[in-house]
Formats: sequence, C-alpha cells, structure tokens
Amino acid sequence: MPRVLRIAAAQQGPNLENDSRQVIVARLLEMMKQAKADNCDLVVFTETALTTFFPRFYADDRAEMDPWFERDMPNDATRPLFDFASENKIGFSLGYAELTPEGRHFNTQILVDKDAKIVGKYRKVHLPGHAEYEDRRAFQHLEKRYFEPGDLGFPVWRTMGGVMGMCICNDRRWPETYRVMGLQGVELVMLGYNTPSLNGLGGTDTPEIRMHHNHLSMQAGAYQNATWVVGVAKAGEEAPGYHLMGGSCIVDPDGRIVARAETEDDELVIHDCDLDTCKFLKQSTFDFAAHRRTEHYGPIVEQTGATPPPE
Amino acid sequence: MPRVLRIAAAQQGPNLENDSRQVIVARLLEMMKQAKADNCDLVVFTETALTTFFPRFYADDRAEMDPWFERDMPNDATRPLFDFASENKIGFSLGYAELTPEGRHFNTQILVDKDAKIVGKYRKVHLPGHAEYEDRRAFQHLEKRYFEPGDLGFPVWRTMGGVMGMCICNDRRWPETYRVMGLQGVELVMLGYNTPSLNGLGGTDTPEIRMHHNHLSMQAGAYQNATWVVGVAKAGEEAPGYHLMGGSCIVDPDGRIVARAETEDDELVIHDCDLDTCKFLKQSTFDFAAHRRTEHYGPIVEQTGATPPPE
Repeated sequence: MPRVLRIAAAQQGPNLENDSRQVIVARLLEMMKQAKADNCDLVVFTETALTTFFPRFYADDRAEMDPWFERDMPNDATRPLFDFASENKIGFSLGYAELTPEGRHFNTQILVDKDAKIVGKYRKVHLPGHAEYEDRRAFQHLEKRYFEPGDLGFPVWRTMGGVMGMCICNDRRWPETYRVMGLQGVELVMLGYNTPSLNGLGGTDTPEIRMHHNHLSMQAGAYQNATWVVGVAKAGEEAPGYHLMGGSCIVDPDGRIVARAETEDDELVIHDCDLDTCKFLKQSTFDFAAHRRTEHYGPIVEQTGATPPPE
Repeated sequence: MPRVLRIAAAQQGPNLENDSRQVIVARLLEMMKQAKADNCDLVVFTETALTTFFPRFYADDRAEMDPWFERDMPNDATRPLFDFASENKIGFSLGYAELTPEGRHFNTQILVDKDAKIVGKYRKVHLPGHAEYEDRRAFQHLEKRYFEPGDLGFPVWRTMGGVMGMCICNDRRWPETYRVMGLQGVELVMLGYNTPSLNGLGGTDTPEIRMHHNHLSMQAGAYQNATWVVGVAKAGEEAPGYHLMGGSCIVDPDGRIVARAETEDDELVIHDCDLDTCKFLKQSTFDFAAHRRTEHYGPIVEQTGATPPPE
C-alpha cells in the first residue's frame, strides 16, 4: 500500500439559500473530476457542503429546519459523488447535516473509500454559538439549537494506507480534538469549516486575526500530534453581511502550511502527503508513552468550565 | 490593582561550564536593573538560569551532578536578585535545578512578587530526553536521568494583579500544560527554555523548523486558553557543537507574537501586557463551560501512549 496520498482540499465558494442540492453537487462533482484528472487519491469537501450554512437562520420551531438535513447517505442528490468515486477509485470526505431515523440532528462528516464505501462517520462534538435567538449578535449562530453534540467521540479508521480521523469547524480550535485522535496514532485529520470572517459579537478581532486563529489551531494540532491536517473552507458571501473566510490549507506534521487556497471560490488545494513523515516526531518529541504525564491531566476531564482562584 | 503589567522576558546568552553563579547572577541583576529603569513590573528569567544546561553531561554516578543544583532559595548566590526585587518593587520568575532536603531533584521555576516573597513554585512535568547514555545522539539530553518529573501539577497563583502560571521548556509543546492552567483561568504563563537548535537525533528538522515549533506551541497555548505567554530562551553556544535557540518572545491572548528577541545574547524583550485582553476569548470562543465536551476527552487521562488501530 503506498504511503503517499495525493490529497485535494476542495474549497467551496458560497452556497446560496436557494441553491438546490443538485446545483451544488454538480460543483462538487466537477471538483472531484478535476482532482481525479490530477491523480488525487482523496478529495476533502467542507462542512455542510450540500447547503448554505443554515444555522444563521432562526426558526422558533426547530423542525422547520429539517429540509436542510439529509435523511440518507448516499441519497438521490449525492449519489453522483459515490458513483464517480467507485468508477474512478478516488476517496472523499463530505460534511452535511444529518437527520437520523430516530429524529436526531447532527453536524456530520463521512469518509468514503475508493470503492465508495462509507468507512467512517464523525459527528461534530464542539458546537459553537448558542441555542436561543440573541439580539446582541450581528448574525445568529444557532448550531447549539439545531444540532446535538456528536455522540461518536473522535474515532479513527485505518483505510487508504493510513490512520484517518475527522473533525469539523470549531472542533479544530480545541487541542483535545486532535489529542484524542493522536492517542490513536492518527496520520491525517480531515476537517471542513464555515467560519464567519467577523465575530458576530464584535470584539477587537479582525478578519486577519481570525484567519490567524484558524491556521494556528490546525498547525498546532498537526505538530503536537505529528499528523497531516487538511482544512477545507466554505468561503465567501452566503448572504449579504454574512462572509465566510477561505484559507483552506494542507498542514504537514511539522505544523507548516504546505498548500493554501488563494481564492474564496471553488478551488482545489492539492499536495502529496507522505504519511511516513509523521513517524519522526511520533517516535521522538511526541513519543507519548515516553513523555506524557497523565497524573497531572485530570482536570481536563474532571472539569468543564474554568475555575479561577478567588479574588 | 492595575491590570497592565509591563513584562521583560530576560533572554540569556550562554552560561559556560566554568561560569560561576556569581558571574551569572551579576548578568541577571544587570538585566533586572535595566528592566526596572524601563519601568517593568516583572522580569522572567529562563530555565536553569544559574548554570550551564548540564543535562548534556553524562555521569555514571548521578550524585556527581549535585553541584549544579540549588539546596536553598534564595541562597548566597541569588540573594542579590531578591534584595533588588524588594528594594525596587519588581517581581521576577527564575528557573533553576532544585535539590530538596529529602534529596529529590527537580527542574524548577519560582515566581517572586514585588516584595521578594516566593509566591509560586513549579516543577517541570514533561522531562524530555532519556535516562541512560545513548551513543546514537550527537549530544546527550539526560533530563530523565537527573530530574524527577514535577510533583506539583500545573498550579496558578493570583498575584501582581493577575492569575499567573509557569511551565518549563518541553512543557510548552504539550497542550495539556496550558489547558490545566486555562481551567484555572490563567492570564499569564511564564516559561524558560534551553532548546538545542538541532535535534541530537538527526531527522529532517532544521533550526528554522525547530524555531517554528517553538513559537507555534506557545502561540497555540496562548490562543487556545486566551492567556499571555512569555517564553524566555537561554541562547547561543554553551559548548562547541551545542547551540541553543533564541527566539524569546511575548505572545498575546490571540496567539500573536507581539515582541521578540533579535539576538542570542542577554537581551530584554519588553511589552505592556493588558491582562484584561484575555477576557473576550475567555467569554466567547473559549467559554469552556459552554463549549467543552469532557465526555469525549477520557483517553487524554486514561491512556499515556498512542494505540493505533491494528494494521
């Protein structure tokens, strides 16, 4: 099994509110075809790749949002992606809103191998935003209203020659995300994001600072676990005043950005990722068995919020 | 109490094997005087500031290393620092090798307030390197031979107007270090490091990559916990072929390097650190109580080494 994977981060321009899944999937399929023509092994699509980022909409009745969710995968809309994958032996990862037969809602990403088999499923653990309408915000970010926190943890899968994991958007800011996968020997983390260029709460942060946060989080997660990280944006204006950052990138196990999107449109960012380059740091600086001191990590699990010392 | 602390990272040029503590402390005192003249509130010195980085030496009998350790603090050699602090109302943090009355050895850092009172002590948890002589290395890194892992966890202290924590050198590469302090509301993390510019094990990493690792780790720790981080190097050639990186810096709660050393000598890196700038991210993106999902973090504490899925 070769250990060099040619990976395409398939950045996506905006999905508008009224874009049908058929129109959107045609764009994804076009990127998959380009990736195949460039001999890629794997295409990583973004979070909620099939729809606009609907958590900016408020609905009193949450069920009104169900049309944004997928009840089956593949389904009629996404079958062309699976068909292309199996016919052309190219893997992919895809983010979408998942509505289960039991009526549960998750922000989900799947990993599909070169035979178009779904080999992995991840459900977003760290939901940002809020559950109720908040007037103070320039725009709503209602992920906590429309999704449950993921119930699958941070699993990894051995497939396509490596140890693969996924996370989604806000998950990338939390070192716990990468560490739980790092403890399973992860060599490639795939993630999509829909991240507004401005914080709806104001504050002093600029689009430049927020892009820095975006890359810093992925670079640190890559280095500190000696893994490749592929981060894929949905970018551009999905609605007036609602601009999503781009900056899709591929990060090597030293935490260096080795390839990066230049636009805010549909754009492939391609790199040959040698999974064996994970080994040096995994066996030296980040030989976890030799160096971690779990007896001092207890609060990370025992305590959720911060408890500063008394004033 | 003012919430803006003017902090000096006191980078140190090399300490040679035969430099006496008196000679070295005179250099530290000179930097303290400069910092006071520049109205600093706090001077952060480096790891093993009082001696050369002796873990590069091998001794069959570990007790031969005891002369590199301090049995009391303050002691005759370091008293001038404490006297200057209390007379001039300036705090400091100092790293040194500690030999306890019970005969235990730690890589230690203390925090001293403006009345020269030792208000905090930290003992390095993540000891890098190895315990036995290894022929394959270009130079030895015997921290695991000469020190015990720290037994105090990652405490913080409310002093000098903020919530302060410390860690040492290799600790800075581990997100657990910052997170345990972040869970206690830390606003300023002080750390020193003695980091060789080349990995003694070879590998493909260059001094540039290793400097990138150094800064990336501190920037991520700062951002992901919304805290200031002050990183202070011992820099330059302590012996032929044994070159330590510089790059001392002050990192803001957005994970940006706001001040950085330009030399590999004794050099002050000074910045006005407004501890209130920690608040925005602590109350939004990194509102731990709202967003952390500890039910999925168990392996971080339950498992030390990595366990990849079967081949």
